Amino acid sequence: MTTSHPTSYSRTIQTRLVLPPDTNHLKTIFGGQVLSYIDEIAAITAMKHAGSVVVTASIDSVDFLSSATVGDVLELESFITSTGRTSMEVFVKVHSTNLLTGVKTLTTKSFLTMVAVDDQKKPLPVASILPETDEEKQLFKTAAARKDNRLKRAMLH
Amino acid sequence: MTTSHPTSYSRTIQTRLVLPPDTNHLKTIFGGQVLSYIDEIAAITAMKHAGSVVVTASIDSVDFLSSATVGDVLELESFITSTGRTSMEVFVKVHSTNLLTGVKTLTTKSFLTMVAVDDQKKPLPVASILPETDEEKQLFKTAAARKDNRLKRAMLH
Amino acid sequence: MTTSHPTSYSRTIQTRLVLPPDTNHLKTIFGGQVLSYIDEIAAITAMKHAGSVVVTASIDSVDFLSSATVGDVLELESFITSTGRTSMEVFVKVHSTNLLTGVKTLTTKSFLTMVAVDDQKKPLPVASILPETDEEKQLFKTAAARKDNRLKRAMLH
Amino acid sequence: MTTSHPTSYSRTIQTRLVLPPDTNHLKTIFGGQVLSYIDEIAAITAMKHAGSVVVTASIDSVDFLSSATVGDVLELESFITSTGRTSMEVFVKVHSTNLLTGVKTLTTKSFLTMVAVDDQKKPLPVASILPETDEEKQLFKTAAARKDNRLKRAMLH
Amino acid sequence: MTTSHPTSYSRTIQTRLVLPPDTNHLKTIFGGQVLSYIDEIAAITAMKHAGSVVVTASIDSVDFLSSATVGDVLELESFITSTGRTSMEVFVKVHSTNLLTGVKTLTTKSFLTMVAVDDQKKPLPVASILPETDEEKQLFKTAAARKDNRLKRAMLH
Amino acid sequence: MTTSHPTSYSRTIQTRLVLPPDTNHLKTIFGGQVLSYIDEIAAITAMKHAGSVVVTASIDSVDFLSSATVGDVLELESFITSTGRTSMEVFVKVHSTNLLTGVKTLTTKSFLTMVAVDDQKKPLPVASILPETDEEKQLFKTAAARKDNRLKRAMLH
Ligand SMILES: CC(C)(COP(=O)(O)OP(=O)(O)OC[C@H]1O[C@@H](n2cnc3c(N)ncnc32)[C@H](O)[C@@H]1OP(=O)(O)O)[C@@H](O)C(=O)NCCC(=O)NCCS
Ligand SMILES: CC(C)(COP(=O)(O)OP(=O)(O)OC[C@H]1O[C@@H](n2cnc3c(N)ncnc32)[C@H](O)[C@@H]1OP(=O)(O)O)[C@@H](O)C(=O)NCCC(=O)NCCS
Ligand SMILES: CC(C)(COP(=O)(O)OP(=O)(O)OC[C@H]1O[C@@H](n2cnc3c(N)ncnc32)[C@H](O)[C@@H]1OP(=O)(O)O)[C@@H](O)C(=O)NCCC(=O)NCCS
Ligand SMILES: CC(C)(COP(=O)(O)OP(=O)(O)OC[C@H]1O[C@@H](n2cnc3c(N)ncnc32)[C@H](O)[C@@H]1OP(=O)(O)O)[C@@H](O)C(=O)NCCC(=O)NCCS
Repeated sequence: MTTSHPTSYSRTIQTRLVLPPDTNHLKTIFGGQVLSYIDEIAAITAMKHAGSVVVTASIDSVDFLSSATVGDVLELESFITSTGRTSMEVFVKVHSTNLLTGVKTLTTKSFLTMVAVDDQKKPLPVASILPETDEEKQLFKTAAARKDNRLKRAMLH
Repeated sequence: MTTSHPTSYSRTIQTRLVLPPDTNHLKTIFGGQVLSYIDEIAAITAMKHAGSVVVTASIDSVDFLSSATVGDVLELESFITSTGRTSMEVFVKVHSTNLLTGVKTLTTKSFLTMVAVDDQKKPLPVASILPETDEEKQLFKTAAARKDNRLKRAMLH
Repeated sequence: MTTSHPTSYSRTIQTRLVLPPDTNHLKTIFGGQVLSYIDEIAAITAMKHAGSVVVTASIDSVDFLSSATVGDVLELESFITSTGRTSMEVFVKVHSTNLLTGVKTLTTKSFLTMVAVDDQKKPLPVASILPETDEEKQLFKTAAARKDNRLKRAMLH
Repeated sequence: MTTSHPTSYSRTIQTRLVLPPDTNHLKTIFGGQVLSYIDEIAAITAMKHAGSVVVTASIDSVDFLSSATVGDVLELESFITSTGRTSMEVFVKVHSTNLLTGVKTLTTKSFLTMVAVDDQKKPLPVASILPETDEEKQLFKTAAARKDNRLKRAMLH
Repeated sequence: MTTSHPTSYSRTIQTRLVLPPDTNHLKTIFGGQVLSYIDEIAAITAMKHAGSVVVTASIDSVDFLSSATVGDVLELESFITSTGRTSMEVFVKVHSTNLLTGVKTLTTKSFLTMVAVDDQKKPLPVASILPETDEEKQLFKTAAARKDNRLKRAMLH
Repeated sequence: MTTSHPTSYSRTIQTRLVLPPDTNHLKTIFGGQVLSYIDEIAAITAMKHAGSVVVTASIDSVDFLSSATVGDVLELESFITSTGRTSMEVFVKVHSTNLLTGVKTLTTKSFLTMVAVDDQKKPLPVASILPETDEEKQLFKTAAARKDNRLKRAMLH
């Protein structure tokens, strides 16, 4: 399947209540829990777009700008920003809302690369992406620069 | 706080990947797992509307129309359909999508009654609801009939 | 297998300690967690009776009469109240006990319909039920009225 | 509280469906999962008897006589066999039932010592136990020999 | 495969943060949770040594010498102490560290017997063990006495 | 506390069995599960070094070089590579071992920045780090370049 899909075809929204087992002594959510939610929504988005199973090839650096506490709600939103032959770049934004005050803050945003694979875990060609909103078109344009930066970064390891 | 909020203020969307631990031998999701997701999204919706903690007072009968299997995605959507003094009726719809075929089916829909409570678990007054879409207005109108039916049902126990 | 079994053949008892991850800010158990326990015990009861895998076709309305808190013990009891060709009506009662005071209260009771299925998820005939105690005989008699009420309810959706 | 309670006051029954996350490659339940269920039911039994929080002081050797597989049901039964000043010996029996064949086998049995404690984790006096059935009276009599054996065993460490 | 491996070939270290869902009202870890961690590390050790799946045949008595609290770190260490034809005795030590004070205490130690099995759950021959350190040599020597004690204990049941 | 600790003071090792609930249809571990384990071991390492609670400020890009499957063992190793006033850079390496073949492959490596905080979530000064091995000294030297790269990367967002 090598046609194309608009971004809305796979755009995904996720809402999560922060519960005690996800948090440390200060009742603050673990970074690892947020990363796990980010990977899950990115995988759902990529599976919708590709119509196949996917694996996570990489996640770009994640900065945790604010924290979330027991009883807050995390809202995750994710869409495809660009595609290669078998890989998809997925953008994920995470907001946290304090339900009692209604205040909503940006927790983090991140880019992941997901690869479509078949039952033998061999990479599979994916449809291309048609960005629709201004934000999507902007991130589509800057995708090449991020790919480049990923390669440079890999050198430092 | 006894003002009013439009439905869009608390409308919530939730996306869940069906994983092996949620399923039986036939890789079909447990009804109890779906009920647990329904209660979670209804609680988030009611907490957003009420700006307080809530407890589940009741859930109306749930018919499971079709099943979901490992690797499917559950999409839940929920909004407030009507309010009492301290209680809120919440409507939840659950669809299941097979990611490989893109086929989406209705799994179930349900009404729950959530009650806003304070730290001593005493019921708290809630804002009233302003339905916006046709579906919301329709369910707002039929809320009284459902409340009536709930009372009659209680007699049979 | 279309013989019959007495109620005691599949009657099931379940005891659960309420733990922090099952609860909200007020340390009160989530309704969804209780629903999930109700579905699990009903499925075990129906699988014992049918000698096959089962799926949940429906759960009747559930009213949460009182809450349970971290450290309380939930006691669930469940038995078959009547059978159709491939379906079983299961009755579940949930009590909550405060272990420090010994006080035991009714949390909720509910009726579920479970359907026996084969490996292709096709409904399978089940044995009929022989009620033994007075409570069981009473619920066996009122089963038809509840089935009727379920159909009427379905009309309102 | 230093009165006495009959065994039936705290006797506990527990039923668990074996699910995929509890099992290894061969779909056999992990020994550690069974141990965790044994400790949970023993704690519930001891808390009912003592009317206080308890901690596990020790568990006697456990031999796993047969295994349980995904879809089987574990049935645990537990009661107090004897009491010290602040400690209780709890006996736990675990059976596994294959729901499709109805065959029930003994998985294991074990003795645990639970100690009643206050909020500062200081041991608290407990009520004494009145054994009722023949099995209970027999295990009450042999409790001293097991306590003795525990001390000897401790020497070997 | 009936060659031999040194102890270091399968020695395993495990570090676990104590989280709220693992604990009771006093924020003390459940004994059952510790037992579950002990079984997991023993299984990993035995699988490394045997190069096959293993099942837990038995766990010797476990005394909980001190408790661990939310925020503490459990450190588990495990190695093979002796081998039979298809069984392995595994020794597990558990320490608990309070991260804020740096104080480290022994929580418990235990011996488990794990059996290597094939896909049909039939016991498989295992390599013999070559103890290296003084502690390992000492426990290798006393293994026969423990095996003997296990048999005597079985008589009392 | 602003003294210094050698790397060995907080170096941490973690071993994890890959279980069915951590994996997708292909029985391959989710990237999010690995990220969650990486965050947990980095937090333990940083808490040992700082003697206080910590929060995750950021995680550098993570490339998943190879996958791990149900029944494999993940071995994580982590140590502090450099310190700021209140932050610590933590390096985590993840290897995956197939227990049946004994083959061990690098799954990924990553750098995280953890910040020590007090009960009010205010950053706290941390001890400085004394690298010991060649690898530790090398990573200590290149820490400034990575910090620089992190800042540049932030510009692209
Ligand atoms: C990701 C993976 C499939 C790539 O395999 P490979 O042999 O390198 O395959 P290819 O060279 O054909 O690359 C396939 C695509 O992945 C991309 N890719 C590979 N490594 C990448 C990385 N670290 N970051 C971003 N993209 C990467 C390639 O650019 C290529 O994209 P394109 O087809 O759009 O041009 C393989 O490394 C893998 O299986 N990793 C483990 C994935 C996993 O299990 N993650 C979960 C936790 S471990
Ligand atoms: C729900 C609960 C707070 C109601 O308490 P109460 O003493 O009956 O309080 P009130 O009579 O003031 O009723 C409060 C509101 O709940 C509604 N309510 C009570 N029982 C209800 C039921 N079974 N179904 C629907 N609504 C119900 C009332 O109609 C009232 O609504 P209104 O203020 O909009 O008119 C109480 O029964 C409770 O705590 N139940 C347990 C809730 C819980 O913990 N659930 C989770 C799992 S157990
Ligand atoms: C339940 C299910 C098997 C019924 O399938 P169907 O094609 O309607 O099959 P049938 O018409 O032969 O009905 C089988 C039995 O189920 C009963 N049934 C069907 N829908 C029902 C409902 N909503 N409530 C109660 N009973 C119901 C029928 O009355 C019939 O009972 P009987 O044989 O005793 O007379 C099917 O709807 C299904 O698979 N649902 C999803 C179940 C599931 O996966 N639940 C978990 C979470 S989604
Ligand atoms: C169990 C514990 C409370 C005993 O504390 P202690 O200072 O030895 O207290 P005491 O000497 O007063 O003993 C209290 C009772 O425990 C019994 N006891 C202590 N260690 C025991 C053991 N290993 N096996 C069986 N009984 C034991 C004593 O015989 C005494 O019983 P009695 O009052 O009926 O005569 C203490 O060792 C502890 O807190 N251990 C950790 C418990 C825990 O947290 N377990 C969960 C996982 S780590």
